[in-house]
Amino acid sequence: MGLDSQIVNMAKTARAASYKMAIVSQEAKNRALRLMAKALIGESRYLLSENRKDLAAAAAKKGYSKALLDRLSLNAGRIENMAKCLLETAALKDPVGEVLKSLKRPNGLTIKKVRTPIGVVGIIFEARPNVTSDCIGLCLKSGNAVILKGGREAIRSNTAIVKILKSVAQKAGVPADGIQLVSSTDHKAVDILLAQEKYIDLVIPRGGEQLIRLVVEKSRIPVIKHYKGICHVYVSDKADMAMARKICFNAKVQRPGVCNAMETMLVHQNAAKRFLPMMIDDFKKAGVEIRGCPLTRRVVKGIKAANAQDWDEEYLDLILSVKVVRDTNDAIEHINAHSSHHSDAIVTKDVREADSFLKRVDSACLFVNTSTRFSDGYQFGMGAEIGISTDKLHARGPMGLEELTTYKYLVYGKGQLRQ
Amino acid sequence: MGLDSQIVNMAKTARAASYKMAIVSQEAKNRALRLMAKALIGESRYLLSENRKDLAAAAAKKGYSKALLDRLSLNAGRIENMAKCLLETAALKDPVGEVLKSLKRPNGLTIKKVRTPIGVVGIIFEARPNVTSDCIGLCLKSGNAVILKGGREAIRSNTAIVKILKSVAQKAGVPADGIQLVSSTDHKAVDILLAQEKYIDLVIPRGGEQLIRLVVEKSRIPVIKHYKGICHVYVSDKADMAMARKICFNAKVQRPGVCNAMETMLVHQNAAKRFLPMMIDDFKKAGVEIRGCPLTRRVVKGIKAANAQDWDEEYLDLILSVKVVRDTNDAIEHINAHSSHHSDAIVTKDVREADSFLKRVDSACLFVNTSTRFSDGYQFGMGAEIGISTDKLHARGPMGLEELTTYKYLVYGKGQLRQ
Repeated sequence: MGLDSQIVNMAKTARAASYKMAIVSQEAKNRALRLMAKALIGESRYLLSENRKDLAAAAAKKGYSKALLDRLSLNAGRIENMAKCLLETAALKDPVGEVLKSLKRPNGLTIKKVRTPIGVVGIIFEARPNVTSDCIGLCLKSGNAVILKGGREAIRSNTAIVKILKSVAQKAGVPADGIQLVSSTDHKAVDILLAQEKYIDLVIPRGGEQLIRLVVEKSRIPVIKHYKGICHVYVSDKADMAMARKICFNAKVQRPGVCNAMETMLVHQNAAKRFLPMMIDDFKKAGVEIRGCPLTRRVVKGIKAANAQDWDEEYLDLILSVKVVRDTNDAIEHINAHSSHHSDAIVTKDVREADSFLKRVDSACLFVNTSTRFSDGYQFGMGAEIGISTDKLHARGPMGLEELTTYKYLVYGKGQLRQ
Repeated sequence: MGLDSQIVNMAKTARAASYKMAIVSQEAKNRALRLMAKALIGESRYLLSENRKDLAAAAAKKGYSKALLDRLSLNAGRIENMAKCLLETAALKDPVGEVLKSLKRPNGLTIKKVRTPIGVVGIIFEARPNVTSDCIGLCLKSGNAVILKGGREAIRSNTAIVKILKSVAQKAGVPADGIQLVSSTDHKAVDILLAQEKYIDLVIPRGGEQLIRLVVEKSRIPVIKHYKGICHVYVSDKADMAMARKICFNAKVQRPGVCNAMETMLVHQNAAKRFLPMMIDDFKKAGVEIRGCPLTRRVVKGIKAANAQDWDEEYLDLILSVKVVRDTNDAIEHINAHSSHHSDAIVTKDVREADSFLKRVDSACLFVNTSTRFSDGYQFGMGAEIGISTDKLHARGPMGLEELTTYKYLVYGKGQLRQ
């Protein structure tokens, strides 16, 4: 069978299975998730041996970074975390069937807006094998069929995980066809997959900006994505300066390689002299490279100059651009122009100033007097997250189970006719 | 200025205005809407004279259908309806700022999920000038900037409407730049518009399937659409047959040219002999052409045979395909395979059968013991609707003000840091 018909058949099979997935009981789904967690642990030896083959193949090929090899590798602890994520997903509230709205019309019709699964969700990701089991768990719990396309480096690990979880699904009364893995490592497989808009309802790419741009460009299926996280913290002249110092440090340094870390710090001109010297001193001690605007460099000597590109750069590293702004309005305009609309923060004691910032900054998550690092599904109490969206349609910000659902309207009549 | 930079500038201007639109007060928006309604009536003479120029130009060009000329033409009654729609929109609840969820995390963070405007909405439509004022009203009320691109036939009417409404907006303290009309009638204008994903957040095409397919194919901006309405009514063997007869008649005949009219009627095999002869007799008397499956043609003689294409056809006319199905399961499978996922109905007295139909049919709106013709924003109590979505992401079914919004997360802290 050619690659084309292989992928089309897989998508058709997933669509057919999605109708069955949608009506699996909460109890059956949770039982399956718990058994899946158990099976991953039980089959650790097999998983690790398949993973070692992936690692050996990647090592032999060369050209792969140490970071990629790290993301690719499994060990007992990581398998336990995969199992834990499945157990946590089992413990979450089932979103399917929730009545979002219910109303009675003057003509006696009762209308209910009810949460339903989306249908078939495609996940396109890179080397992390845990994405495979996390996504299978979240899609199962939300009643969706899932088609996974992981990076070629992880193909043996992913095949092993899917094999284990499908076999559990079958035994637990969940349609195993609702879990599909693209086994081809041919790049064309992605192109074919992205053309199956008849059978796939949503694509979520998880990975670097390059992967995401590729998916967006080629997909005829709706995509939910975030390209990057260019997050700002704005320190108002009305901030508690000691608090601002800790928040900015946390937002930049606690884990610089992630999308919700601060990349640009904005400081009110009236706070610059009080705030910047001690703050930049903290950063320098932590090894953070500062790139400053002219005013910043006037207040603190010996800082590298920021260029125009710096304001649109996601460093994902111990680098920070710093800009002194005229006022809150200037800060808001800078953020709306340069933020990736992911997560931005203000530090201020002035409630009205905070309010205006919250209303006017056009980002998925906004923070007052706390760190952008809290922008995360777990931190928001959603349980596991399947991604963070910087799109505005359907889902914005962290995406949990609810964001993997849609709704339908159920209208109950007693023979009413349209006049 | 070339067409390219003209459209790009318009999109940029709309984006900048969208930040202002988002914070206009409810009172100012409602006052503007009421003044707009008044202005349309007050400027009727001007509007009608511009509309007559459009009609004359269209008549001179030939090739336009009578139906198009009818849709294009304005009169006192239609202008009153446009004004009425603006007044009704003023009376609707302002969706912006609604707190959708509020929670306190164990670390003391308060998280609020708050409804916000989407930003910039593009509307691409055909000849009806009322779409212009309806969409301006709905976008204004939901705090969005709007870019309108209407059919070339209506360019003078649309220009006049936009001129009147922008001038009112300005006086009423609503940013007039938030209302933009593409004045070029060059087809390329649409292509350029659909590439402005940086400045436009959502595109809603309103019109025939051809227009919508063109928009979907070319757009880099998310699109919400419905291609067509292939709606089914399934008459169970457990239906009240007298009720079923009235519902099916209403769904097909009351207004056959619209998307929520029935195109295919499914009948349980055990009901066929009781139901079909009288039903088909009703339809024949109303001038409905019946295209039947072999079993239908065995029960009622002298009916045209349906071919394979009939099950996927949106007639928008007094034509109906009729199929006898084995059982409810067979009906559900037929609908999931052939429906356009817009609106489908079941007639039955059996609550469990109805439940199973509602759970298993994958359509935006499902009806029990009533007509698919109720699938409509007004009928659902939303007030005016901007369209009906057969997509599953963001908005499904009738789209009112709420469906023109997104949300953001506001996180309030007291210096909390991520561990």
